Amino acid sequence: MINKLAIIGVGLIGGSLAQSLRLAGACKLVSGYGRNTENLEKAIELGVIDEYFTDISKVIFDADVIVIATPLTTYGPLLEEISHSIKPSAVITDVGSAKKCVIEDAKKILGKNIQQFIPGHPIAGKEKSGVSASSPDLFQNHMVILTPLSENLADDIQMISSMWESCGANIVTMSVEHHDLVLAATSHLPHILAYSLVSCLAKMKEEDDIFKYSAGGFKDFTRIASSNPEMWSDICISNQNNLLQVINQYKAQLDEISGMIKIRDKKGLEDLFSKAKITRDQFVEQKTTDFNDNQTK
Amino acid sequence: MINKLAIIGVGLIGGSLAQSLRLAGACKLVSGYGRNTENLEKAIELGVIDEYFTDISKVIFDADVIVIATPLTTYGPLLEEISHSIKPSAVITDVGSAKKCVIEDAKKILGKNIQQFIPGHPIAGKEKSGVSASSPDLFQNHMVILTPLSENLADDIQMISSMWESCGANIVTMSVEHHDLVLAATSHLPHILAYSLVSCLAKMKEEDDIFKYSAGGFKDFTRIASSNPEMWSDICISNQNNLLQVINQYKAQLDEISGMIKIRDKKGLEDLFSKAKITRDQFVEQKTTDFNDNQTK
Repeated sequence: MINKLAIIGVGLIGGSLAQSLRLAGACKLVSGYGRNTENLEKAIELGVIDEYFTDISKVIFDADVIVIATPLTTYGPLLEEISHSIKPSAVITDVGSAKKCVIEDAKKILGKNIQQFIPGHPIAGKEKSGVSASSPDLFQNHMVILTPLSENLADDIQMISSMWESCGANIVTMSVEHHDLVLAATSHLPHILAYSLVSCLAKMKEEDDIFKYSAGGFKDFTRIASSNPEMWSDICISNQNNLLQVINQYKAQLDEISGMIKIRDKKGLEDLFSKAKITRDQFVEQKTTDFNDNQTK
Repeated sequence: MINKLAIIGVGLIGGSLAQSLRLAGACKLVSGYGRNTENLEKAIELGVIDEYFTDISKVIFDADVIVIATPLTTYGPLLEEISHSIKPSAVITDVGSAKKCVIEDAKKILGKNIQQFIPGHPIAGKEKSGVSASSPDLFQNHMVILTPLSENLADDIQMISSMWESCGANIVTMSVEHHDLVLAATSHLPHILAYSLVSCLAKMKEEDDIFKYSAGGFKDFTRIASSNPEMWSDICISNQNNLLQVINQYKAQLDEISGMIKIRDKKGLEDLFSKAKITRDQFVEQKTTDFNDNQTK
């Protein structure tokens, strides 16, 4: 049981976590901090948090667990602000999509208290943001990746794992480097590709027509281009090297396909598309199996 | 009322058209042709068609409307086979995603009878293929683009328009060139990007992990990579020039974003993502409005 939970950033992820823990009876008091008072009022109204303060030190005062759920580039200034007010027994965690940069910031600012910081990342989200989009079942049957530090205490890691398990999530631990590369490929790259497609099409002079005549495939494909721009520009910069690497790999793949189209290599294209289809169908089937397995657990 | 409808290729599109017209009482007899007898038997079982023959001349014999719904590169050989058996009063149409190549083939083969051929393209589909995936409401509130030829008769164009309207579709006519460019951008390019993403990720040595840790965004983004490989390799080749052009435009856009990531241009990225988000949100809103308008018509 968490006596006091401090949510720094009561948006989609922070709000969903608070709701889920309250529903599970896993925390007593939820205190919220954010930049947008209207959003915080909404969070009170929706019963997501019990209280909020615009003074962050009041929010983290005596908190047992502090969850940072704000865009990645705000971590540094926020940690600076709170580093001297965190109680020694508190555990800090986060939900950021890139982990190396977060850990570097935290180490610099928290110094020897870095042991209190357990880096985390729930693999869940929507293209909507803000507390109104939050929901208590957002993490149900989703993975939460933890990338613990050598300085962390086993009990603290266990506490954060249990917190996420209360939300129905499955915990996975991995190295920071592996996390950042895997997420660059499966999450950050697709977002860049979707933003890029919408931008590219918006520039074509047939713009009006182009969007008018698009079908369901385009809508699904570009769903993630409706994601929070601030959050995603932060992720790009925070996971810069991995992202540039996977963009290059992607461009090489696109060039291979272009090359086949140029020489009208129907068989080559069909083979490549068939392999991609099989891979993707297997992935969806596996996800469905995992989901059903978890449902019956 | 269509007395006899010949469906050449009883798959997702051909099967859905037949079902929809039967449900609307818009045709008396549906005769089917295809390469896969098992699929045709299934079509009979599902009540999609009344009869099928493996001899295509029997299928088109005395047909009032002949719909070609097979992969694009099969049009040439099919038209060769049927060109001398089509009755003079029959109208031929198709559902192909690229129109210039189709029209070139048809003109070459049909000669002066080209007036009987009305090129068409319903903007509807799914990633599943075959008659089992077909459904009578596939075209409901979707657009069907016709790219009529100067040789076509107004009555024939009207007949094909009415046929699609019976399926709940909205008819749009445009030039062949405009169709092929707009579709390259909104449909063919996204498919290539999705196939490319799955192929790219499958090559990374972290493959197993990579698919395991992907979330809902990835699943939606790659849905179209589960589309029919034969159909899509045909589309790539048939709309070669437009597709190569939009792939180049896309690569330039991706390079712009890479460049911003390289120099850590947070503001530039955020602006670009914001514009894309606004464009995409407006598009979805517009689509929803159009849909509701059509529902209340």
